[in-house]
Amino acid sequence: MRKEVAIGIDIGGTNTVIGVVDKNGEILAEATTPTLTNTDIKNYLDALTSKINETVFEIKEDIEVKGIGIGAPSSNYYTGEIVGASNLGWGEVVPFVKLLREYYDYPAIVLTNDANSAAVGEMMYGGAKGMNDFLMLTLGTGVGSGVVANGKLVLGHDGFAGELGHVITDSDGRECGCGRNGCLETYASATGICRTVSELIASTKIPSSLRDVPAGNFTSKMVFDAAEKSDELALMAFELTGKMLGKAISDFVAFSSPEAVFLFGGLALAGDYIFKPTKKYMEENMCFLYANKVKLLPSELDGAKIAVLGASAVVWSELN
Amino acid sequence: MRKEVAIGIDIGGTNTVIGVVDKNGEILAEATTPTLTNTDIKNYLDALTSKINETVFEIKEDIEVKGIGIGAPSSNYYTGEIVGASNLGWGEVVPFVKLLREYYDYPAIVLTNDANSAAVGEMMYGGAKGMNDFLMLTLGTGVGSGVVANGKLVLGHDGFAGELGHVITDSDGRECGCGRNGCLETYASATGICRTVSELIASTKIPSSLRDVPAGNFTSKMVFDAAEKSDELALMAFELTGKMLGKAISDFVAFSSPEAVFLFGGLALAGDYIFKPTKKYMEENMCFLYANKVKLLPSELDGAKIAVLGASAVVWSELN
Repeated sequence: MRKEVAIGIDIGGTNTVIGVVDKNGEILAEATTPTLTNTDIKNYLDALTSKINETVFEIKEDIEVKGIGIGAPSSNYYTGEIVGASNLGWGEVVPFVKLLREYYDYPAIVLTNDANSAAVGEMMYGGAKGMNDFLMLTLGTGVGSGVVANGKLVLGHDGFAGELGHVITDSDGRECGCGRNGCLETYASATGICRTVSELIASTKIPSSLRDVPAGNFTSKMVFDAAEKSDELALMAFELTGKMLGKAISDFVAFSSPEAVFLFGGLALAGDYIFKPTKKYMEENMCFLYANKVKLLPSELDGAKIAVLGASAVVWSELN
Repeated sequence: MRKEVAIGIDIGGTNTVIGVVDKNGEILAEATTPTLTNTDIKNYLDALTSKINETVFEIKEDIEVKGIGIGAPSSNYYTGEIVGASNLGWGEVVPFVKLLREYYDYPAIVLTNDANSAAVGEMMYGGAKGMNDFLMLTLGTGVGSGVVANGKLVLGHDGFAGELGHVITDSDGRECGCGRNGCLETYASATGICRTVSELIASTKIPSSLRDVPAGNFTSKMVFDAAEKSDELALMAFELTGKMLGKAISDFVAFSSPEAVFLFGGLALAGDYIFKPTKKYMEENMCFLYANKVKLLPSELDGAKIAVLGASAVVWSELN
């Protein structure tokens, strides 16, 4: 019998991850392709679909592709559109599902917020198994979020629920791609911590190896590596990032009183450097009703796989 | 046949409202009794239960009481406890349901957050009929909230979800009863606007009739009455209150993308004085994804009745 599979796609700000996944969450094949940003979306779709075809072709088992689940920032499950994802640069409204249907006619082609995919993945295969109420925060190029309440993903009235990266943490704060100032993602993302490093370089006289690197070349990995070498400025950047994130989380908790908050994405890979200050400021700012009750956890799934697993899982729920 | 009824009780900071309600949401009898604060809870329960008995006794129809639903601040549906409701002054943890069971043995005695009751009332009998995703904000002595997502009340992992009055809007801000600083309810409640009046009296030289009143005597009704007489300081107090509330709402929207946000409670009765600035700042601060999509609405139910209706409705859902 042919094995039914779903293709899960995770569109990140830098790379797109493709996984061919069976119903048990086993990844039969996977691949990565650059996310071509600031270009005609057609160029990206041509490259993406070539890579998908190549990946599916390599599988030796007899498979039947039932659908494609895509996780992308600022995505709308109801309309299949990516709206205003400024960091992708494909235009204001991208009818992603409609465009992908010009390449494939699988029974299900569904688009969700990449953080929603991650939340579904964590709930089906990871640390959120059996949890009815939790938050997933993805700390990548931006900050995404997936909200699960009463055991269900909160999509909201129009499908755009869970954009906690765009909660304003400092109204006089940093310029955000969304056109406003001080959004959480300008601080608590992989790019946010790089901006914090630049700020510390300007505002302090703390010596740091990062002063020898052009700001345009900063990566969160670089800040992590410096922290590993006890670079004081890098450590302070993590502290300040955790402060903004922890304070924001203590407010989020008042909304849905989750059992746990999962951190996932590039910045979350920094482990204790980011978890310790985040936990500290989260508890310091927490309303007493929730004090010391909410777990702050790393995703239990392989970072590269969780969103792909989640996106593929959405295909099965769409077909049921 | 005896008519089945539920008793709905709404415990406010000043008064407690009692309603005997049938399954169609018709209130057969109602009464109000002062909320005795800063006293032994037993004194309050003695007075409350006397009033309940008296109210039930007056009903001429042949009724059968199936239960009591109580809406109160900082309440936990799962445990039946009121926890840390500092403005009530009955102690840190009040096992309300357990204590009330010493007076009654009805099949269902259930406690919910008063704002959750209001949300259920609005959904069953008011303007949120047919809505799956909305927020209810109660602007009374404090600020309470009820979150409905996917058609269900969000109670959270431990029953304390929806305490949006304790989201921090200014971390260097006003002292809150919860022990922290700058919580939304220190600005956007009936008491919050009185504090704003005091602040404006100190910081401006704007003439106002409110300068002739001791701050301890301020009420939101008084600020409303002054605004009705074009008192510039009172109008500015509404503007600033709407600013804090509107900015907070634009952040809440990023969480659950609701179809509407309902305002209810003493301060909401000020109509345009509070709705206009709230709407203005809400849209001004809204992430573009949600711009001009979210309705800001007054509760469609009689303010005195909505929480009682909602609290009684919770009895029926408990018994089903």
